[in-house]
Amino acid sequence: MSAPRLAIIGLGLIGGSLARALREAGAAGPIAGYDPDPAQRDAAQRLRVVDHVHDTAAAAVGDADVVVLAVPVLHTAEALRACLPALKADVIVTDVGSTKQSVLDDVERVCGKLPPRFVAAHPIAGTEKSGVAHSQPDLFRRHRVIVTPHAQQDRTAQALVTRLWEAVGARVVEMDARRHDAIFAATSHLPHVLAYSFVDMLAQLDRDHDIFSNAGGGFRDFTRIASSSPQMWHDIVRANAAAVGSLLDRQIDELRQIRTMMRESRWDDLKRLFERARAARERYLAQIE
Amino acid sequence: MSAPRLAIIGLGLIGGSLARALREAGAAGPIAGYDPDPAQRDAAQRLRVVDHVHDTAAAAVGDADVVVLAVPVLHTAEALRACLPALKADVIVTDVGSTKQSVLDDVERVCGKLPPRFVAAHPIAGTEKSGVAHSQPDLFRRHRVIVTPHAQQDRTAQALVTRLWEAVGARVVEMDARRHDAIFAATSHLPHVLAYSFVDMLAQLDRDHDIFSNAGGGFRDFTRIASSSPQMWHDIVRANAAAVGSLLDRQIDELRQIRTMMRESRWDDLKRLFERARAARERYLAQIE
Repeated sequence: MSAPRLAIIGLGLIGGSLARALREAGAAGPIAGYDPDPAQRDAAQRLRVVDHVHDTAAAAVGDADVVVLAVPVLHTAEALRACLPALKADVIVTDVGSTKQSVLDDVERVCGKLPPRFVAAHPIAGTEKSGVAHSQPDLFRRHRVIVTPHAQQDRTAQALVTRLWEAVGARVVEMDARRHDAIFAATSHLPHVLAYSFVDMLAQLDRDHDIFSNAGGGFRDFTRIASSSPQMWHDIVRANAAAVGSLLDRQIDELRQIRTMMRESRWDDLKRLFERARAARERYLAQIE
Repeated sequence: MSAPRLAIIGLGLIGGSLARALREAGAAGPIAGYDPDPAQRDAAQRLRVVDHVHDTAAAAVGDADVVVLAVPVLHTAEALRACLPALKADVIVTDVGSTKQSVLDDVERVCGKLPPRFVAAHPIAGTEKSGVAHSQPDLFRRHRVIVTPHAQQDRTAQALVTRLWEAVGARVVEMDARRHDAIFAATSHLPHVLAYSFVDMLAQLDRDHDIFSNAGGGFRDFTRIASSSPQMWHDIVRANAAAVGSLLDRQIDELRQIRTMMRESRWDDLKRLFERARAARERYLAQIE
């Protein structure tokens, strides 16, 4: 099969980076693009991120063999609905959302049933920067992409999406959608909530701007994810609210336990907790190295 | 005045890095060192971090014009007590602790009153790595050092400590000790508590080690400070418990507010909170750049 013709709906950091990566790898035919935001469309055109920027989603997908939905997760249904009338019969549609069950539910709702050639995927890559201007062709190199096949999954479609991600240097792994959502609630969604919450709390204290001006490197790294797109993370937390909410309950519980240790001067307990945490993080580092 | 003879008590990341930086800058005479941990002493000797490693604190400080206490903050009193009988009459003693009022209190307790030539200082530098093996001579370059002069402060002693830090590339600023502790409770001490707590909470969930193996770059940065020394951070949180505790109360409160927003589907409020946090962090970035 010749290189597939692509359409990317949503020309942000992920959509833009995927377009640039696929072109650099020569893994795709012509790439069409669309973004609901005229400023992103203009920037994508100016940066030549895709071959042709269209003014509507339907116009972008008319010729496509593969359509990539690269929009904030709660906009998946709306984006798909806009494409639907113009899609070719045998088109493969895939996405890049950070939650997977909500995306499968939305696609099922829009289409009546889950189309066999819809492939749900989540590249574990990105930075706190958003927008096509920050897109980079090597964003996915040596990163994982989680594919969460559904009961009606067409395996040929899944294999083609897998090949595209591998062509841009990613390693593709399969996972159940709900399991994916539980894991990423813990490693990604909750930390974003904590970081936003911490920075917001400090900002309310920092009337005289002295706190932030005295922050060091630890602070910078700890709060980096609080510079992420509020729209995108609002969508993710909302789409995965049950899993994030129950972890947030546990986190609040553990912080209250720490507060009690401090109040009761149970300093050895606090130190043991710090030691357990450090040991766990060392195991994590050993795993990824 | 010729370059002062130094003694560094506590040959960890900070003490070791300061010794190496001062020698590289040619800003100190001979540097003696001591660490209560024989393994750190051996490593310091092997790496030639100081000119001479002694077996007791008293032996290390006998010739010193300037003694640097570079121990976890709650060990300040003990370290000073061990040095006291051997100190020269006109010696300058300084420290590098992350809390300043507790150090001033401890020094006052050990000496009966605050010695004019004791200079409380806190270099805003470090990494999550601890121990002399990770020491590096450029650790302080372009970093701030906060000096918190006390009521009896000898300004000549303060000026000499300032010159030593400036010689290794740091920028020295003055601040009231209690104000310092309030600010660093917010930008440094509380984030460490949050990071340890978050990793510990996940570790309890991660019976099958699937969570950590699926963590991405955001997780790595967010949890980096949870790899810091548990002993050091136990000491800091304990030494600054009032300030850290009251901020932790505020943080728990704000997380409970977020949980309520999620429960009541007040998604616009959540998005506004994320937007406020991102705007605050952008202001912080603009300040430090």
